[in-house]
Amino acid sequence: MSNQHQSTDKRAAVLVAGSWGTALASVLAANGYKVMLWTRSEDQAKGIRETGENGRFLPGVKLPENIHAVTDLKEALGGAELALFVAPSGAMREVARQAAPYLSPDTLVVHATKGFETDTLKRMTTVLSEELGRSADELVVLSGPSHAEEVIRKLPTTVVVASANIRAAEQAQDALMNTDFRVYTNPDVVGVEVAGAIKNIIALGAGLSDGLQFGDNAKAALLTRGLAEIGRLGAAMGANPLTFAGLAGVGDLVVTSTSKHSRNWRAGSMLADGTPLDEVLSRMGMVVEGVKTTRAAHELAKRYEVEMPITAQLYEVLFAGKAPRTAVEHLMGRLRTHEIEELV
Amino acid sequence: MSNQHQSTDKRAAVLVAGSWGTALASVLAANGYKVMLWTRSEDQAKGIRETGENGRFLPGVKLPENIHAVTDLKEALGGAELALFVAPSGAMREVARQAAPYLSPDTLVVHATKGFETDTLKRMTTVLSEELGRSADELVVLSGPSHAEEVIRKLPTTVVVASANIRAAEQAQDALMNTDFRVYTNPDVVGVEVAGAIKNIIALGAGLSDGLQFGDNAKAALLTRGLAEIGRLGAAMGANPLTFAGLAGVGDLVVTSTSKHSRNWRAGSMLADGTPLDEVLSRMGMVVEGVKTTRAAHELAKRYEVEMPITAQLYEVLFAGKAPRTAVEHLMGRLRTHEIEELV
Repeated sequence: MSNQHQSTDKRAAVLVAGSWGTALASVLAANGYKVMLWTRSEDQAKGIRETGENGRFLPGVKLPENIHAVTDLKEALGGAELALFVAPSGAMREVARQAAPYLSPDTLVVHATKGFETDTLKRMTTVLSEELGRSADELVVLSGPSHAEEVIRKLPTTVVVASANIRAAEQAQDALMNTDFRVYTNPDVVGVEVAGAIKNIIALGAGLSDGLQFGDNAKAALLTRGLAEIGRLGAAMGANPLTFAGLAGVGDLVVTSTSKHSRNWRAGSMLADGTPLDEVLSRMGMVVEGVKTTRAAHELAKRYEVEMPITAQLYEVLFAGKAPRTAVEHLMGRLRTHEIEELV
Repeated sequence: MSNQHQSTDKRAAVLVAGSWGTALASVLAANGYKVMLWTRSEDQAKGIRETGENGRFLPGVKLPENIHAVTDLKEALGGAELALFVAPSGAMREVARQAAPYLSPDTLVVHATKGFETDTLKRMTTVLSEELGRSADELVVLSGPSHAEEVIRKLPTTVVVASANIRAAEQAQDALMNTDFRVYTNPDVVGVEVAGAIKNIIALGAGLSDGLQFGDNAKAALLTRGLAEIGRLGAAMGANPLTFAGLAGVGDLVVTSTSKHSRNWRAGSMLADGTPLDEVLSRMGMVVEGVKTTRAAHELAKRYEVEMPITAQLYEVLFAGKAPRTAVEHLMGRLRTHEIEELV
C-alpha cells in the first residue's frame, strides 16, 4: 500500500543498523529516499550488502535496494536531508560524538531511541543536543506502538514525532509518512521521551507477571498502575499529561506489554523462570532497554520525589536478588483503597 | 490465598447465573457468605445443584458448597445483606422488576453489568433505580479488568466499586475484598459505567483488526483511539476523566481487547472472516454485549454530539453490511495530523 516515490536525489542517514533502525530505513526507502544505513561493524555492513538482509536483527526480510549499508560516517551523513539516530541509549552519546563533524547544519536530526543515559539520567534529546552542538528545541523524537518486525512488513503502524519546533516535527512527518506508516505530531518532547523509556520497565513487569502465570486480569492491573507511574514521573519532569493518553503513552505501553515481539516482555518472562539476569541478557542477543532504564528511573524517582512502585520492585528483582514472585505479589497487594488517590 | 471466613450467617444473592455472576458468587462464598445464585432456568439450577458446576458457562470448575442455585426470588433475596445484579444489560430491567418485591430496603444493591439499555440508552444504575424504587445514589457498580475464568480460579484480580454514596461503595468493598480479589472504591458511577460499556465496542474492533491480521501496532493504535473515544463520551455525560485512566478504563480496555477469554474480541475476529453477525452470535452461545452497545453508543454519540469514529465504523459493519477491512482501513487512515487535537 506504500506510496512509492521515484526520486532518488533525496538522501537520509540512519544510525545504527539494529532492528528498529533498519525498519525505519525501510520506511524512508519506501518514500523514495536513498538511505545510508550506518553500522560500526564492517562484518554487519558486508552481510547486509551481500545478502540484502539484516540477518542478525530482521532475518528473512529483503531490504529495499535503495538502502545502503555503510561504515563510513562521512559517506553516511553527506548530503543527508534527515539523520535518524536509533542507537541504543547507552551508545547514543558516542555515536552522536562521532557523527557530529560530518553533520550539516541543514540536516534534520530525529531520534527514535527509548531510554535515558544511565549515568547522567539525561533524555536522548539532551544527549544529542550536547554532542551535536544544536539547540534541543530543533531536535525531533519519534515514538509510539511500533514493533520493527511489523513495520518492515508494512503492517499498518501509527507513531508520533515530537519537537519543540513544530516545523521540525512536520518535516519529519513529511519524510516518514506513508499509507502504512502514519505519523502524527506532538509538541511534548519530554512526555514522549519519558513515556517511551518507562514503558519498557512496565513491560518487563508484565513479562514477570505472565511468566508467573498470574493471568490477564493481573497484567491489566499492572499496566493501569504502570501508566499512572509513567504519568507521575512525566508530570514531575514537565510533560503534558495528555501525551500519556496517546500513542507514545498508552499505545506503546499496550503493544510492548502484550506483544510476542517485545524484548522487554520476553526478558521479564525469562526472569520469572528464575533465569539469572546475565543469562537472560546474553540469551536475548539484543539490548533490553528496560534493564538499564529501571536503574535510571529508580534514580529519577528519587530526584523528582515521585512514587514509582513498579520501578522500585523491578529494581530489586534485577539488581538486589528479590524473588520475582514476591515482587509481583507485593505490587498486587499495595494499591490504595480509593482509586482516584492512586491516579492523581 | 483467600481469606476463608467461617461464619455462615451472612447471606448474599447473585442474579443471574452467567459466567460473571457465578465467578462473583464464588468470591462472596470464599468470604464466608451463604450465596443464593438465582437463575430463571429450572434446568440450569438443577444442573448446578447436581454437578456442583456451572456446566454451561464455567465448565470444569467446582463451585464452593456455600453457593446454592435457586429459581425462587423470595428464597434468593430473603435476608440478603447484599444483592448483586449481573443480568445481561438487555434483561436487567425485567430481572430487577421481578426482584423488587422481595428486596429488603436493608439489602445493599450492587451491579456488575457492562452495557446500556438499548431502547432508552439508560445506564444500569438508572434502570435499577427505576425498577427498585431506590435513589440511584445508593447503588453500587462493580467493574474493572476481570475475566470470570480467572476470577473463579483465584488468579489475582483488581476491580473498582463506584457509588455516589461512599459508604455504600465501602460496604461492597468489605463484602468482596480478599487476598486474590482486590477491590478499590471510586465515587464516579457515570465514568465506571460508560467505560465498562464502551470498551466492549473497542474490543470488537480489536477482534476485527486481529482477524484481518493487521498486527499488534495497529491494534495498539486502535486501543489508544478507543480510550479517547470512551473519554469523550464519558466527559459529555459528566464523568471524571481520571476514571478512564484507571481500572475500569484503560485496565478493562486492555484485558478485553487482548485476552483470549474475551467474547467481544472473539466475536470481532469471527466477523473479520466474513461470518455473518447472526451466525457469530449463535456460535458464541453467550451474550456479546458489544453488539447491543454499539447500537446504543451510536445513538448516545448523536445525543451528546460526540465524535466516536470506532463506534461509527463498527455500527456500519454490524448493521449496515460494511466490509470489515474497509472499516478498519478507514479507522487507520483518519487520525488527525496533530495528536493532541485528537486527544483533547
